[in-house]
Amino acid sequence: MKNLILIFVVVFLFSCQNGEQKKMEFSKEVTAVINEIERVEPPNWFIGFKDNSLQLLVKEENIGASNPSISYNGVTIEKVSRAKSNNYLFIDVRIDASTIAGVFNIDFTFNDGTKKTHTYELKSREKQSDTYVGFNSSDAIYLITPDRFANGDESNNINLELKETAIDRSDNYKRHGGDLQGIINHVDYISDLGFTAVWPTPLLLNDMAESSYHGYAITDYYKVDSRFGNLSLYKKLADELRKRDMKLIMDQVANHCGIGHWWVKDLPFDDWLNHQKNYEENKDNWNIETSIGSNHRRTTNQDLYASEADRKGNNEGWFSPKMPDLNQRNPFLAKYIIQNSIWWIETLGLGGIRQDTYPYPDKEFMSNWAGTIMNEYPNFSIVGEEWSYNPLIVGYWQKGANNKDGYKSNLKSPMDFPMQKAIVEGLNEEEEWDKGLIKLYEGLANDFHYTTPKDILIFVDNHDKTRVFTELWQDIRKVKTALSYMLVLPRIPQVYYGTEILMNDTANPGDHGLIRSDFPGGWKDDTINAFTGEGLNEYQKDMQSFVTKILNYRKHSAAIHDGKTLHFAPFMGTYFLFRIKDDETVVHIINKNEQPITLDLKRYEEVGLSGKKLKNIITGEDFIWNDEIHLTEKGSIILTTKNN
Amino acid sequence: MKNLILIFVVVFLFSCQNGEQKKMEFSKEVTAVINEIERVEPPNWFIGFKDNSLQLLVKEENIGASNPSISYNGVTIEKVSRAKSNNYLFIDVRIDASTIAGVFNIDFTFNDGTKKTHTYELKSREKQSDTYVGFNSSDAIYLITPDRFANGDESNNINLELKETAIDRSDNYKRHGGDLQGIINHVDYISDLGFTAVWPTPLLLNDMAESSYHGYAITDYYKVDSRFGNLSLYKKLADELRKRDMKLIMDQVANHCGIGHWWVKDLPFDDWLNHQKNYEENKDNWNIETSIGSNHRRTTNQDLYASEADRKGNNEGWFSPKMPDLNQRNPFLAKYIIQNSIWWIETLGLGGIRQDTYPYPDKEFMSNWAGTIMNEYPNFSIVGEEWSYNPLIVGYWQKGANNKDGYKSNLKSPMDFPMQKAIVEGLNEEEEWDKGLIKLYEGLANDFHYTTPKDILIFVDNHDKTRVFTELWQDIRKVKTALSYMLVLPRIPQVYYGTEILMNDTANPGDHGLIRSDFPGGWKDDTINAFTGEGLNEYQKDMQSFVTKILNYRKHSAAIHDGKTLHFAPFMGTYFLFRIKDDETVVHIINKNEQPITLDLKRYEEVGLSGKKLKNIITGEDFIWNDEIHLTEKGSIILTTKNN
Repeated sequence: MKNLILIFVVVFLFSCQNGEQKKMEFSKEVTAVINEIERVEPPNWFIGFKDNSLQLLVKEENIGASNPSISYNGVTIEKVSRAKSNNYLFIDVRIDASTIAGVFNIDFTFNDGTKKTHTYELKSREKQSDTYVGFNSSDAIYLITPDRFANGDESNNINLELKETAIDRSDNYKRHGGDLQGIINHVDYISDLGFTAVWPTPLLLNDMAESSYHGYAITDYYKVDSRFGNLSLYKKLADELRKRDMKLIMDQVANHCGIGHWWVKDLPFDDWLNHQKNYEENKDNWNIETSIGSNHRRTTNQDLYASEADRKGNNEGWFSPKMPDLNQRNPFLAKYIIQNSIWWIETLGLGGIRQDTYPYPDKEFMSNWAGTIMNEYPNFSIVGEEWSYNPLIVGYWQKGANNKDGYKSNLKSPMDFPMQKAIVEGLNEEEEWDKGLIKLYEGLANDFHYTTPKDILIFVDNHDKTRVFTELWQDIRKVKTALSYMLVLPRIPQVYYGTEILMNDTANPGDHGLIRSDFPGGWKDDTINAFTGEGLNEYQKDMQSFVTKILNYRKHSAAIHDGKTLHFAPFMGTYFLFRIKDDETVVHIINKNEQPITLDLKRYEEVGLSGKKLKNIITGEDFIWNDEIHLTEKGSIILTTKNN
Repeated sequence: MKNLILIFVVVFLFSCQNGEQKKMEFSKEVTAVINEIERVEPPNWFIGFKDNSLQLLVKEENIGASNPSISYNGVTIEKVSRAKSNNYLFIDVRIDASTIAGVFNIDFTFNDGTKKTHTYELKSREKQSDTYVGFNSSDAIYLITPDRFANGDESNNINLELKETAIDRSDNYKRHGGDLQGIINHVDYISDLGFTAVWPTPLLLNDMAESSYHGYAITDYYKVDSRFGNLSLYKKLADELRKRDMKLIMDQVANHCGIGHWWVKDLPFDDWLNHQKNYEENKDNWNIETSIGSNHRRTTNQDLYASEADRKGNNEGWFSPKMPDLNQRNPFLAKYIIQNSIWWIETLGLGGIRQDTYPYPDKEFMSNWAGTIMNEYPNFSIVGEEWSYNPLIVGYWQKGANNKDGYKSNLKSPMDFPMQKAIVEGLNEEEEWDKGLIKLYEGLANDFHYTTPKDILIFVDNHDKTRVFTELWQDIRKVKTALSYMLVLPRIPQVYYGTEILMNDTANPGDHGLIRSDFPGGWKDDTINAFTGEGLNEYQKDMQSFVTKILNYRKHSAAIHDGKTLHFAPFMGTYFLFRIKDDETVVHIINKNEQPITLDLKRYEEVGLSGKKLKNIITGEDFIWNDEIHLTEKGSIILTTKNN
């Protein structure tokens, strides 16, 4: 058996090099590619997974009345399930380990003897499962709202087949034209800044009448939104990133789809959606009053005292009236979502998934979803969005948490909303006993609760939150401090596009459209171009340089990636944090004093830096760690014992 | 062996009934009670403990130059330890299981042949270990500052031998004369209110020049402060409470003593105190500048990133310059403190200990201290003060917590500062998405983190915090709501004396002296007497009645003591919480609406109350749980399915 597996690996590697050629060859087995069926999803599958099961969703008028058959070595139909709607068929297929890549026909025979055929492909896998290494604490993630980053292809600005046909840059809630080509054009910019991973918000089809730009109302889980590009371009982005040793993170949404999703018009089962009956009864008059919205009481996932009513209110209510809530307790839907995630990992060679609204779907499903993925790709990474400022809740979701209710999470990376809040509040507040830097210090102290703090994603803002420059009262010193602190923590840092040029939403803090403003230089006639630096003011250029210096240091800093953390309680308006690994010690100092201050370094004796020469990562200046340090400016300082 | 143990049990029971007589009899064995030694502590000990070791601290001039000997069946000197100061001797004694109660002489023979003698007593125990049942969720605790509750004995108002000689009721930081007799006089008042346990703040000697009234600067761990009374009165208080099925909780302080403590003048070892050298070098000029105060960074107990410097800063710094920090890493001091606690449990027949400043001493010591007590008294209760609003920290200290650093706490009851804050903030705030009642709801949801929520002590104020009437803006409806909510939670509730008559510190919120104001009726010439009701206004009488009704219901409510908890997310300015056990369901409703409101009860269907008759605990009115409830007044309602 072992030998057999080895042989297949050789075949895969070959296939990897000669993919196109091989595909042609296998295609010879069937007469021609036939497509008489509206949809078969996943649109293709892969050989060589640990899990040898595959469930096909077949959508075609009256298909429920047919019997499917497959004749291909190693592929067996195990079960055929008919849905409530006669236009669906679910086929469970077993793919034996010995199966080789290739195409074959699925024949659907109807009672009257007529037949429809669909040609299906089983592809070879391009890489071994364990080489899908997800983002981790050695990475820094650049978060992009694609519609607002760069318009790389003006030809896709207008699409008359979709509900939002054209762009309108005068309206912050309409599409602005940013696309995949725009990101691809500027991969070097992102790489030069020092980022090693890119997380674009969802790029799949959002055929919605309004606000389709944000991407979280997916209407086809297998189709790239044509206004962003197509699958080839998405693959190209992945390839361009891979060339630069960068990871592509896909933003996925398991909780809900967009109301324009193709299946909403003809739902396979009565329980495909939560509150489906209510929707179907009211759909002609559908609005915020007729819909049953989520109560957003996410603590019902943890609360041992929560009522069943509230628990359902969170899990089954719709996130918005335009986003039907998927019922992951329907096993066909559950399987559909899981396979969809795996299809994208495999198709794009992903370096991670960001899962939206993690505490809203059925939590057992989320555990299975993440568990199935992690079982297939043991080194992969998934970050889930739980917008909670409570470390207890954040910790509950992390894999390995010893939860009293027995819940086994398979989520490696929760998000650090508590530290985000602590950083913003702590830097804005005047120093007091329980205010100011103590919030950073005690916030980080909460790490004792987490299974693996360094797998948690940290950020100072994101696409849903007021931009940090606005949040920190447009004080550049505070923004630098927030960023430098975040970037030395035992975390996976995420920076929102434009933070490096002080983009803000000061005109209307918290306004989503404004938070997601166009990146200057991304549009042809932009007078300011942040990619080239043209038209940027000195503060913006300085901030770009600041981010670049820290990230490029961070990229190779074992102390930051994986070092011991040691920090000292805030003292006289300062806060010292150390990251230590072998010979490398990184010192992060926050100073909130407007007036110069001299500190006795004896307090930090146990760090063992006495007499050592350190270098300021930003200024390049040397500092000898002797008796004292003189801090002249408010802000942060990063020193390192590493010379290069 | 088993038989042997049974025989001894019989002897103990006999001794219990005829204690005094027995003691006389045994005394005959020694010629006479001799006391040529300044101190031998513990002043006596007991037979029949699981732990058969006893360590005597002997204090006498030049005693270090002597050799002690004991001749008594079953008592063996195992080790004699000499201290740095020649005026101390520590004697480790083994007390065999077969030892019978009695008195014996300890002879101290000096090199020159001279001898000093001390008569020591081993008493029989009055009760079996497992009958020491500590406070639990079936109890309600009345917290008293004894100096401020009632002056039952005017003869002890003046004591010329102590540093604060007389009372001065015009100064809130001086002694006011309240005493043990004052509490004894009013045990019925406390009992009638419905309380089942009393926690007086410390009653031991505080021979301090200033602020001795508060009791937390103990200067003799074996002596009742004569201004409060004496040991007999302390025992009498315990007895009077016991007669009424009430528990006495002793407030103990392991972290520090008062600077007037007798041993401070002649410290046995160089490391009896933390920062002892600094103290000894500066004692002639001792003040806040020369002392090394605690940094109060209590999170260093949990924080895996904390510096050693900060950890020591918390654990070894002095809580105040007038309170020397005891070094529990000195094994003689550690044993002294542990034996002292056991001596008081045994001597008073305690129903619990409240341990001050729990996160300040060495945490391993605290684990041993509590562990030793709980090992001896398996059903005992200890509550530790950790003033943290962070549930992670609170949970860390509770016995059974699965702490990542491996720390095994033996503390059954931490204090619920997080819920105290949530209640106050939630009731004061206007209802918003993340403000108001949601704080109570989500605060309580955090219970999923705790090992045993019902063992946690809850309170709305205490002797260190602004009184709840002041904190809730003198809004009686809010105070009632806070109290009723607290009293139905799965917790051990504690109420500060005077809350039942709306005592407040509104004139200067947070002022400790004012918080601990004199209870009206406790002093001879008081024009208002809250014990009799004389002179109280209608609001005060109403609040007394309100507290009495809830507590007397609570006393017999299995649903509150031990029932299932179920609550519903706040909705339209209301918050419903249910406690359920067998046939008893207690419903607690908070309503923040100023205008009448009608609620559909369908939302609460899963509770299963449909059609049932409930009774309002306060008004006695019946309510049939049908389609809806009409809430006419802002405040809280408690309903029960129980008819009596």
